[in-house]
Amino acid sequence: MSYSVKTIEWSDDGVVMIDQTKLPTEEIYNTYKEVEEVAQAIKDLVIRGAPAIGVAAAMGIALGVKNLTSKENLDQEFERICKIIHDTRPTAQNLFWAIQRMREVYQGHRDKSLHEIQAALRDESIQVLEEDIDINRRMGMHGQALLAEQGNVLTHCNAGALATGGYGTALGVVRSAVEQGKTLRVFADETRPFLQGARLTAWEMMKENIPCTLITDNMAGYFMQQGQVQAVIVGTDRTVANGDVANKIGTYSVAVLAKAHNIPFYVAAPTSTIDLSIPTGKDIPIEQRTAEEVTVIGNRQMAPDGIDAAYPAFDVTPHHLVTAIITEEGVARDPYTESLAEMVARAKARRTAKA
Amino acid sequence: MSYSVKTIEWSDDGVVMIDQTKLPTEEIYNTYKEVEEVAQAIKDLVIRGAPAIGVAAAMGIALGVKNLTSKENLDQEFERICKIIHDTRPTAQNLFWAIQRMREVYQGHRDKSLHEIQAALRDESIQVLEEDIDINRRMGMHGQALLAEQGNVLTHCNAGALATGGYGTALGVVRSAVEQGKTLRVFADETRPFLQGARLTAWEMMKENIPCTLITDNMAGYFMQQGQVQAVIVGTDRTVANGDVANKIGTYSVAVLAKAHNIPFYVAAPTSTIDLSIPTGKDIPIEQRTAEEVTVIGNRQMAPDGIDAAYPAFDVTPHHLVTAIITEEGVARDPYTESLAEMVARAKARRTAKA
Repeated sequence: MSYSVKTIEWSDDGVVMIDQTKLPTEEIYNTYKEVEEVAQAIKDLVIRGAPAIGVAAAMGIALGVKNLTSKENLDQEFERICKIIHDTRPTAQNLFWAIQRMREVYQGHRDKSLHEIQAALRDESIQVLEEDIDINRRMGMHGQALLAEQGNVLTHCNAGALATGGYGTALGVVRSAVEQGKTLRVFADETRPFLQGARLTAWEMMKENIPCTLITDNMAGYFMQQGQVQAVIVGTDRTVANGDVANKIGTYSVAVLAKAHNIPFYVAAPTSTIDLSIPTGKDIPIEQRTAEEVTVIGNRQMAPDGIDAAYPAFDVTPHHLVTAIITEEGVARDPYTESLAEMVARAKARRTAKA
Repeated sequence: MSYSVKTIEWSDDGVVMIDQTKLPTEEIYNTYKEVEEVAQAIKDLVIRGAPAIGVAAAMGIALGVKNLTSKENLDQEFERICKIIHDTRPTAQNLFWAIQRMREVYQGHRDKSLHEIQAALRDESIQVLEEDIDINRRMGMHGQALLAEQGNVLTHCNAGALATGGYGTALGVVRSAVEQGKTLRVFADETRPFLQGARLTAWEMMKENIPCTLITDNMAGYFMQQGQVQAVIVGTDRTVANGDVANKIGTYSVAVLAKAHNIPFYVAAPTSTIDLSIPTGKDIPIEQRTAEEVTVIGNRQMAPDGIDAAYPAFDVTPHHLVTAIITEEGVARDPYTESLAEMVARAKARRTAKA
């Protein structure tokens, strides 16, 4: 794999991110020097994808603390920084997971010198990034075993390297299958309104010479009907205790279509996206974005002035439509209440063993 | 109804059409003076929608014959003109229906003077337009009876005034229901890639103050899941003997979703779109358009250079997903092989009675 795009990394100057709103026509890397800038980048979708948001959240907090000059009111300052990151996007579980993880490190170091606290938080945020890539590789290996030697895999949105620290969740499974010698073609839903499929997934697949056909979201059913889709794999922003899956708007429609055509529907979910505190999907907060993101495409107005438009950014796929949930600890199947709890327990045990 | 947009009309200077590729931001009416120009306008989607294509086909043929200066080789000339119109788009039945209708008028007048032939074809094409509006109004009355006093109706693509001579097929049903005092809101699928929903349906609904919410195609399942859709109504480009329905790409997905949510799925099909010569949907020719129409939106490239992209312009919804087919002669239900034949027979009897 010659693929070398860095979604996000820590530097002495600040947090460096590729601007995903400009892809695929421009590859621009920006350096963010303040936690407020990182928060705005998350809100503006410069960086998106639950695992990548988790990394950005951790690095944003580390950056905020790095910029402090004294330990005065440190507890309040730390919580202020966490709140700036917290109040960006409501659905992705990794945001809250990362904040909690940074808070634990802070609690463990708060009696040390400011310099030591800053170093510990910086190291932890880099650790979150590195672990994420490792997690994706392990998830890829578990997931690729589910795919046949050849076939077409449909994916929605971008759950690739750009949605993570690297490698990807759903696309990590595809990458892993290709690395194992399997012959796959990806059908990439363009994923309106933000076009993550057209702009990001198509771009990643081309970079790696993985065959990819771009389709509009409304073509998914057609290609399933034609027998051209052998599996669906998507990522998730939050998967809850019973296996209900929140993911990019349109995922639910794809899941219903997959079920109607007897096509397996897989979700690639690092345990950091699993929220066992919520029993079912109906309690997952769904972000509502502005109508303009639907009516204007690439600065061009595509709908009449004043039209009402809706933009729920995510939807919830009920667990009965999910064939399996692929985690870095193995493949979870129904009953998910048991299997997901087991995966989360394994991940915790692994971290404890390391520490 | 103050709505007064003319999709297409005959004038002494030629055929006048509103340029639907420029809506909703520009309202431009062009006059086409040659049959070749009308054919190009059909290919370029300046005019689209099966019934409107039928009108344009009839007027294009009338225009071609109007421009002849002698009866020399008249049979060959007439067939040449028909072929120019024929070779534009393969799926819409109304194109072939209109050519056949013009051919019959030509056959009935070919021994008369050129001037008389020209006048007969011109009058017939104007008749096709006027009948179309009348047909839509009758279809609207039959269809509106299927809708509850209030609720939300989801539609895909544009089957409105702009897709017809006026009033609309699927949106004609909505207009008729509103005229009857029913309280409806339209969910308009934006309908990628050409965005007929965002550009045309939303524009028509705003012109008439019919409440309308624009959604991306991938949101349809979400709003059905939320219980916010009480019925689906779409148009059709060709409906065949067994009730299988070809319509804009994405219609099939909507039909599967409607079935999964127990929402009625209605098709508004003037008998001119019904093709009894084809037994099942698998034999309907599906137009494949260019990848660039998917990858470029409003002149802006949205996908990486060289990406493979698919654009089947239509899909086929099998009759078992269709709750009812609304025609100008009444509402057809399963078994469609019988009910559709009955509707077509009624339409023929009406024309014969008139003639």
